[in-house]
Amino acid sequence: MNGAHAVLRTLARGGMEVCFTNPGTSEMHFVAGMDAVPEMRGVLFLFEGGATGAADGYGRMAGKPASTLLHLGPGLANGIANLHNARRAGTPVLNMVGDHATHHKVFDAPLESDIDAMASTVSQWVRRTGRAAQAGPDAAEAIAAAGRTEDGTGGVATLVLPADVCWSGGGTDAAVPPVAPPRPDPDALESAAEALRGPGAVLLLGGDALRRPGREAASRIAVATGARILAEPTPARQERGAGIPHLDRLAYRGETVQTQLAGARSLVLAGATPPVAFFAYPGRPSDLVPEGCRVLDLGGRASAVRELADLVAPHARPVPARRTVPGMPGGELTAEKAAAVIGALLPEGAIVSDEAITSGWWLPQATAGAPPHDWLTLTGGAIGQGIPLATGAAIACPGRPVISLQADGSAMYTVQALWTQAREGLDVTTVIFSNASYAILGVELDLLRAEAGDNRSRTLLDLPRLDFVALAKGMDVPATRATTVAEFADQLRKALAEPGPCLIEAAVPPPTSFPV
Amino acid sequence: MNGAHAVLRTLARGGMEVCFTNPGTSEMHFVAGMDAVPEMRGVLFLFEGGATGAADGYGRMAGKPASTLLHLGPGLANGIANLHNARRAGTPVLNMVGDHATHHKVFDAPLESDIDAMASTVSQWVRRTGRAAQAGPDAAEAIAAAGRTEDGTGGVATLVLPADVCWSGGGTDAAVPPVAPPRPDPDALESAAEALRGPGAVLLLGGDALRRPGREAASRIAVATGARILAEPTPARQERGAGIPHLDRLAYRGETVQTQLAGARSLVLAGATPPVAFFAYPGRPSDLVPEGCRVLDLGGRASAVRELADLVAPHARPVPARRTVPGMPGGELTAEKAAAVIGALLPEGAIVSDEAITSGWWLPQATAGAPPHDWLTLTGGAIGQGIPLATGAAIACPGRPVISLQADGSAMYTVQALWTQAREGLDVTTVIFSNASYAILGVELDLLRAEAGDNRSRTLLDLPRLDFVALAKGMDVPATRATTVAEFADQLRKALAEPGPCLIEAAVPPPTSFPV
Repeated sequence: MNGAHAVLRTLARGGMEVCFTNPGTSEMHFVAGMDAVPEMRGVLFLFEGGATGAADGYGRMAGKPASTLLHLGPGLANGIANLHNARRAGTPVLNMVGDHATHHKVFDAPLESDIDAMASTVSQWVRRTGRAAQAGPDAAEAIAAAGRTEDGTGGVATLVLPADVCWSGGGTDAAVPPVAPPRPDPDALESAAEALRGPGAVLLLGGDALRRPGREAASRIAVATGARILAEPTPARQERGAGIPHLDRLAYRGETVQTQLAGARSLVLAGATPPVAFFAYPGRPSDLVPEGCRVLDLGGRASAVRELADLVAPHARPVPARRTVPGMPGGELTAEKAAAVIGALLPEGAIVSDEAITSGWWLPQATAGAPPHDWLTLTGGAIGQGIPLATGAAIACPGRPVISLQADGSAMYTVQALWTQAREGLDVTTVIFSNASYAILGVELDLLRAEAGDNRSRTLLDLPRLDFVALAKGMDVPATRATTVAEFADQLRKALAEPGPCLIEAAVPPPTSFPV
Repeated sequence: MNGAHAVLRTLARGGMEVCFTNPGTSEMHFVAGMDAVPEMRGVLFLFEGGATGAADGYGRMAGKPASTLLHLGPGLANGIANLHNARRAGTPVLNMVGDHATHHKVFDAPLESDIDAMASTVSQWVRRTGRAAQAGPDAAEAIAAAGRTEDGTGGVATLVLPADVCWSGGGTDAAVPPVAPPRPDPDALESAAEALRGPGAVLLLGGDALRRPGREAASRIAVATGARILAEPTPARQERGAGIPHLDRLAYRGETVQTQLAGARSLVLAGATPPVAFFAYPGRPSDLVPEGCRVLDLGGRASAVRELADLVAPHARPVPARRTVPGMPGGELTAEKAAAVIGALLPEGAIVSDEAITSGWWLPQATAGAPPHDWLTLTGGAIGQGIPLATGAAIACPGRPVISLQADGSAMYTVQALWTQAREGLDVTTVIFSNASYAILGVELDLLRAEAGDNRSRTLLDLPRLDFVALAKGMDVPATRATTVAEFADQLRKALAEPGPCLIEAAVPPPTSFPV
């Protein structure tokens, strides 16, 4: 079998089922091969950022890697922003990047570029396969690498596959080497337990620990020790809602984080990193760990939090969030009112892709008592994640409703992924919060100018005359526009009741400042 | 003045007028600064690939660099595909990439990534500015670097500007160091002259040599020596049409190039690189220089070709292309018929951005006798160049009609640039050749499968149900759809007569094979 077949069969043997792709000529042996490996479902995107974002959404929900198939350096480059988010999420993703045939590279043909340097910026594992016989074994190692990082979560692995490796015979499929999950260090567990029993303890959860078992363990710890429990600011995946312990997240703004952590004397990290400012500002701290606060790192797996709970809270019971339903407001739609409507209508088992940015500030509270659901956030700050992420999540979980809550400016980076939702008939309801501006930048610019005594306009950040109903129609996704609460609630109800993709453009005013 | 102001004032002092941008929080000091430096026009894009492609189009037409302003690593990554094309075009482009404040980088905040590694893949010059006092001088050097490469054409320069460098005081603007254009080597000129006087000589023009002076000089050489003259396969910019010597381009397919170069005993390169296959295929050559053919490199500037003509053809006169008008066909629209319509209607002084791919095979011949115009092609093979390139060309040349001939699949990579055309009121007519497939990949896949005796479907390469009229409306660009020649001609006439952007979706059948 040729190298391309060997890779595809190795992926199938490793339990992988999906390849999110935007291929080119150098990947045609893979495209031809996908017919011969029916276990592998090819999902086409019109832009690579859609494919990589979908692989992130798939990996977050399926807990195993999806593959991507990308076209040389420029194809990889187009996918890097969402691979950056996947890297920050710790999502298992396996990129296959086609390259010129080995003997062709020296000729510096038009598409030649330094794929390896580019891949290294987002991958924890990069390899270039040199011959067809190595294609299967390399793919098997890539699968293992995507599934394993130091803390036991996944990561981005990139396999560069020259065209001659793919078309040459002599390939064989290979088995994925076993990956032993790391065990938490008993000393670290003991130190963390001691800290949590003491005064001023904060337990910060991230990664896997934000799934239900981790939250229940953390809730037991809070009950038994009085420690404060918080979630990292941009979790890859939270299981939350009625019946599952509620957690507040660390805020976006450093000043608010300082308030949230005031008085902390020890900070136990379970899958989270020490809190830092998202951006630096003149005269404000980058490091948000309070002065004199000790930091103890427990590693990332939910199992570590459970073991910690068994140490410090053997008999405590978790406190589940109560089922609450926000009151339905009326009148003109705002982002705050839209959050209430979403909180009231969110169906059980929903998967929410949240890239609502400034329009999303009210969502966590409004949905805290909704039926159990998964909530995926923007992990790496590279906007344009939301629509692709929702697409991949829908592929991973075909029986579950996916709700994509999306700022208008961010939506436009990877809006092409709507077409894939239509092509694959995915049950995704996209809500575009249309405030016709890069609102968060407007707020930042206003703050900066206020400090400089300057109050000029910010026209460079306005986004007038985008019509998302027309854009959706252009990609075969049915769409409506809502300007009142009643319209929005009605349209959202209908969208959730019907299968297949649809889009609601929710017209909301932009914020004038950070709410907190 | 702060570092951001120092950079902007240095750009203005260096004669730069435009900044194509998609900024983020770390670039807000630049956005604020643009109010204070009115010589610098900020042009907003909804996706960075639009900004970098526009900088390429601007640089090709203005002959001086535009700047881009991009948001950290992910923003740069989104712009890399079109920077790759700019690099291949030799276009002067100056990227300014914001970064976290110097002291903030160690904290590995969510948007932290290796910008320098990424920039190195597309830039001939990369620098990271360390303090505000250096911002102006570094920007001045970047302008010089963008304007100078070894062969005298431009290139991509990237300046990484940490936020604290931008917000700190102590900056000053700086003057751009003088750049001496390289002179052609007299020995190389003499060797080339000797080769052209001999039998089997081919002169291959590229870069600047494809503007009118270079073509006229090459035509004189052909008249005097009988040498064959050809153009590189994907020129950044050709001045062509009635009154200017016509040149055939080297073909996309290696087999056709071999026919074009058959019998060549010497190949003189003026701004071109030795012909190589675009992709490698099993058993076919990568190097397309005929066996035994001597290659002589003259460098890239049109002046070298003129000096060569003065040596070998002092008294010859160039042969201008005659004014010809294709007959207007009728019936259902095809790509071939659309080419005839475009050839018949192309206005004088038009700038054509050509990313029509398989639908564009008939365009060069159909437009060869049109009034004088500029023709810009996809230089680096990274699709998604066309709409941004047209946008930048329109900013560079506000008095000239821009015609963007665009394949449907490629259009979707950077379709967001249509919004910038509307926002800026640019006179761009976009023709989308809608064949509902990645047609060139389909042809490649068919060839590959024919060799394997395999004739399965190619559904993974189909692009059904894209509605470009709706997509354009979604970005405030008026649009129509043509399915017959009469409709297309009528719509194109109207579009060319009216100012501002518009789009025509030209429904054409996909090709079933390479035409040559």
